[in-house]
Amino acid sequence: MAVKSDVVSQLEWRYATKKFDSTKKIDKETWNQIEEGLRLTPSSFGLQPWKFVVVTDQKTKEELVSVSMNQSQPADCSHLVVICRVEKLDKEYVEHYIDAIANTRGVTQDSLAGFRDMMVNFLAKKDAEQLQAWASAQCYIALGTLMSTASALHIDNCPMEGFAKNEYDRILKLEERGLRSVVLCALGFRAEDDKYAQAKKVRFPADEVIIHV
Amino acid sequence: MAVKSDVVSQLEWRYATKKFDSTKKIDKETWNQIEEGLRLTPSSFGLQPWKFVVVTDQKTKEELVSVSMNQSQPADCSHLVVICRVEKLDKEYVEHYIDAIANTRGVTQDSLAGFRDMMVNFLAKKDAEQLQAWASAQCYIALGTLMSTASALHIDNCPMEGFAKNEYDRILKLEERGLRSVVLCALGFRAEDDKYAQAKKVRFPADEVIIHV
Repeated sequence: MAVKSDVVSQLEWRYATKKFDSTKKIDKETWNQIEEGLRLTPSSFGLQPWKFVVVTDQKTKEELVSVSMNQSQPADCSHLVVICRVEKLDKEYVEHYIDAIANTRGVTQDSLAGFRDMMVNFLAKKDAEQLQAWASAQCYIALGTLMSTASALHIDNCPMEGFAKNEYDRILKLEERGLRSVVLCALGFRAEDDKYAQAKKVRFPADEVIIHV
Repeated sequence: MAVKSDVVSQLEWRYATKKFDSTKKIDKETWNQIEEGLRLTPSSFGLQPWKFVVVTDQKTKEELVSVSMNQSQPADCSHLVVICRVEKLDKEYVEHYIDAIANTRGVTQDSLAGFRDMMVNFLAKKDAEQLQAWASAQCYIALGTLMSTASALHIDNCPMEGFAKNEYDRILKLEERGLRSVVLCALGFRAEDDKYAQAKKVRFPADEVIIHV
């Protein structure tokens, strides 16, 4: 590659941080940018079937370690983001979104009726398991966006699937909010002695994973 | 927000491009960066259960329109990326990944035995449907990374779920390669008259989608 862009360098710089420096916290301004990037994540139809729970309370972060296969990242990171799917994706949810479009763009609800019905039908056709899989997959777009945004701001990050979802839902009272935890991302600053920071990144070669047609 | 970072501006700039200018093509150097960003996408365990089919052949792109709910993006975009999951995620696949780690980092296979067994067990515990949902969700990380990378390089993009997966698999001969299509991203340049380029972006407000604990 002749010239390497910033965006590629940022992705090369990042790695799944195993050990965070618990004394270092992300400053408010940087964090606001990360949250804003997360909020701007694209989704199917723009439906945003998610919410993001940002945990900074140290006691809660420590409590989460024991239900995260005893991995230390939830306690030692600066901000732990629990990416949650909205459980009830029904007509009411679509109408809430339609309201947001009408208000943002200054158009009538009527002009959006076709779009609304299409989304309602799309969701209604899925059984509970399919709907859960669909909303969960959307949450992974947010995970990808979050890691890219954080890395662009030189904030270390670690995606985590190894945690007890039911326990997260209970501790963070997610069910009461109509949410279910899907995937985590711990963010902060790598510890100086995190040996993984030095390990060479392993990716399959381009000629293996990319097929040109 | 006091100061807006580039990365947030890039996400504000992007929108789901409905109409591409079919006369404009992404130059080779920029495209290489996008592919490299895609290749660097993080995944669970780093297992990369995916391949990316990049379609630029005009005849194929046009053929895909009729199995994409007649949406024009596959034909009019510059590059269409079909993000595919690897269908057979078994011990052999894990061992191939372990080989890549051993070669890249210059460590022995033996030193990776624990990691290998953990991944093999993780995959073996899932039934076919769960494995498919897991690999598909991983593909959405790649989608998120791809849209962020492209937007950073001011390349328009449009994620697409509305297509006939079986028909894509057939036309692109994916099954023969052990792959299944999961989600698409069309990339290129917005047409001057794409009215959606001017529409205000609709996102739920931060105090609704972000919960602080």
